[in-house]
Amino acid sequence: MRIQDIIARKRDGGTLSPEEIRYFVAAYTAGDLPDYQASALLMAIYLRGMDMGETAALTAAMADSGQRLDLSSLPGPTLDKHSTGGVGDKASLVVVPILAAAGIPVCKMSGRGLGHTGGTLDKLESIPGFRVGLSPAEMMAQVARVGACLAGQTEDVAPADKKLYALRDATATVGSLPLIVGSILSKKLAGGADAFVFDVKVGSGALVASEAAARELARALVRGAASHGKQAVALLTDMDEPLGDTIGNALEVREAIATLTPGTAGVSSRFRDLCLTLAAEGLALAGRATAASGDAHALAQKLLEEGKAREVFRAIVEAQNGDTRVVDNPDRLPRAPLIVPVEAQAAGYVARIDAAALGGVVVALGGGRARKEDAIDYGVGIVLHRHVGDAVENGTVLAEMHVAASAQAQALRSQVASAFSITERAVSRPPLIIGRETAKL
Amino acid sequence: MRIQDIIARKRDGGTLSPEEIRYFVAAYTAGDLPDYQASALLMAIYLRGMDMGETAALTAAMADSGQRLDLSSLPGPTLDKHSTGGVGDKASLVVVPILAAAGIPVCKMSGRGLGHTGGTLDKLESIPGFRVGLSPAEMMAQVARVGACLAGQTEDVAPADKKLYALRDATATVGSLPLIVGSILSKKLAGGADAFVFDVKVGSGALVASEAAARELARALVRGAASHGKQAVALLTDMDEPLGDTIGNALEVREAIATLTPGTAGVSSRFRDLCLTLAAEGLALAGRATAASGDAHALAQKLLEEGKAREVFRAIVEAQNGDTRVVDNPDRLPRAPLIVPVEAQAAGYVARIDAAALGGVVVALGGGRARKEDAIDYGVGIVLHRHVGDAVENGTVLAEMHVAASAQAQALRSQVASAFSITERAVSRPPLIIGRETAKL
Repeated sequence: MRIQDIIARKRDGGTLSPEEIRYFVAAYTAGDLPDYQASALLMAIYLRGMDMGETAALTAAMADSGQRLDLSSLPGPTLDKHSTGGVGDKASLVVVPILAAAGIPVCKMSGRGLGHTGGTLDKLESIPGFRVGLSPAEMMAQVARVGACLAGQTEDVAPADKKLYALRDATATVGSLPLIVGSILSKKLAGGADAFVFDVKVGSGALVASEAAARELARALVRGAASHGKQAVALLTDMDEPLGDTIGNALEVREAIATLTPGTAGVSSRFRDLCLTLAAEGLALAGRATAASGDAHALAQKLLEEGKAREVFRAIVEAQNGDTRVVDNPDRLPRAPLIVPVEAQAAGYVARIDAAALGGVVVALGGGRARKEDAIDYGVGIVLHRHVGDAVENGTVLAEMHVAASAQAQALRSQVASAFSITERAVSRPPLIIGRETAKL
Repeated sequence: MRIQDIIARKRDGGTLSPEEIRYFVAAYTAGDLPDYQASALLMAIYLRGMDMGETAALTAAMADSGQRLDLSSLPGPTLDKHSTGGVGDKASLVVVPILAAAGIPVCKMSGRGLGHTGGTLDKLESIPGFRVGLSPAEMMAQVARVGACLAGQTEDVAPADKKLYALRDATATVGSLPLIVGSILSKKLAGGADAFVFDVKVGSGALVASEAAARELARALVRGAASHGKQAVALLTDMDEPLGDTIGNALEVREAIATLTPGTAGVSSRFRDLCLTLAAEGLALAGRATAASGDAHALAQKLLEEGKAREVFRAIVEAQNGDTRVVDNPDRLPRAPLIVPVEAQAAGYVARIDAAALGGVVVALGGGRARKEDAIDYGVGIVLHRHVGDAVENGTVLAEMHVAASAQAQALRSQVASAFSITERAVSRPPLIIGRETAKL
């Protein structure tokens, strides 16, 4: 098999065989194929596409490039949840405990922050002592004992994806549907669960901005999952504004804990609704209730309102060496020394909140990494006081910046202010759930 | 300037600015840009194309990646000739002496054999002592003294092309029109001549097989030349069968000397016609005669028939340390010890001679390089006794193989025989000159 022939076939719009795709992924992962041939093929795939069969073969080859977790010793069906990434998206911290509280084993592996979007691992590490680096054996033991884990991807989960993603990032080939599907789905397959709930974000702060592209991605994910014998549902959810009221690691953990804690006042209903909807899909996939009748949603709500999900969250924190006192007293989480309000400069209605811009501000405040080796300041971030559709007066506090030093705040304040578009005309808030895709097995 | 943005623009079908193209070529040549980013851009160019302005900018940037020869001290206009490469193509050995005999300075730089096509340098080196490695100063001095040189490209001619060509070869991006034009034209621009005659080969043994693709290439070359202020003519000429009667280094030099020597019997009229036509175009470009009236062709013929071109050829050989005795006695050239005839297996007409296959046989005989470091056996090759359109009987000698050992000949004999397609129906030979392209300055 000559890689030049494989590149040429895709270049000319042809279909690659499963053997050719396997050869490419295996040789590249093993270091037997130079980056320059891989990147030429990636660009040809970007421009020529891949059909469902090719995408499935790519996904399988990437999943098989490392170890696949074997969850068969757990009482199935096991579940996994994946978000394509957004600003302020801390849903895993609430959804995973709800599912586990229903007795569904969830072995959840997450990633670090990437660009303007935060990472679940960074958020969890804002809990003093919390350990994300679990071995596969530790994950299995914990899931068996407390129902779930929230861990980092092991080095051996789809190593092909790590190498290919770095190359795609350097060669402007990130935004290719089959490559995105291969990347997401190979890691889920390697994670070993029986069924997946995908949260495909739509909007300016998301991986894909347009609803059409997001729907295409959602379909490709559930169909791809089905082609590997996995149940899956994908929800299209709004990411034109940040999710919930907080952006920043410890601030987001606080919001998650508040959502998990029954009777807490001032919780973002939009974030809570998303968590319940995603959890309901998971409960339905696992056969615990039906989605259409509303039973699943009611069950998710019950698990949340009775504090069952909160107890699982506490058990996860404890099992992973975290300081469980933060669950009862979130003030123990890292806090920024200064809070700087950002006020509206005009009266009107919030028409838009630029999620990507606010995500960028939080990275600039030290809450994310510009480079891999940067340290994170867990306490910094932004708390949103107004959302799309809200009426504001001149001087209304739109948001608070939680910062380490006032000089920093002054430099970035105007960016926060201009992320809010204020219009004279009333604006209705766009729906949270934009669409739903599922595929028959 | 970020290379990812440049790649993304071309990926999306946009137009690159001259600054972006210059940045890419300069950074890649300097080693500041990794191969994997360059190859992603090459694939995007392959699939999205480049307009004339982009191609001109690419050509200029590649020409400027090294030294451009300054021919301004020579009495202009100076001329250069380029063939896109074919099997049995030794036309430079005849055309350059004709032009120089008319007083037109020709500083010709050539390359080595590539794949199944031979290289002018390898052919020249079959002349004992012939030195192709001239410095720019030596070239200039020789052209001023004897009218022409036939030298190797210096290391410093368009170094970007050497690096990019190797990368294209490894990434299935060779066959892209703007990349081909950039490669050819950058070297011609660096060669410093005022006007160019291009011989664009068409057919199974050529860089481009179809007439449409060859015409597109011819147009792009003359228009590209014009955009750099250079006069140019491109002829489309047949390469569905090998050019002339010989394939192989010393055999081709013999054929060139025979063509240059007035009164030699048995010279291939088709090869001679091509040389005269190309030379006539050059004479016309240099203002020595007009092409349309036939004056140029007559002048070329006169320079050949009076032995003037032969005298220049002898002077070139002498100036470049070659053994001039081969001009009067070509038997002094390297000769293979064995000559093995290949006969027709059926009566009929020669419908096709697979030039690429015969070129491959000559490489296999040792007459070309499978790898860069291989030594060349100058004496081996193939002499064609029949051409397309010729009638043959069963047993007619189609060709002779000149080989080093008989075992070798036996292994390859059937390949030579099957390169000749014999049909029952009479076949008319396709025209030699298929088209002509020129561009107004």
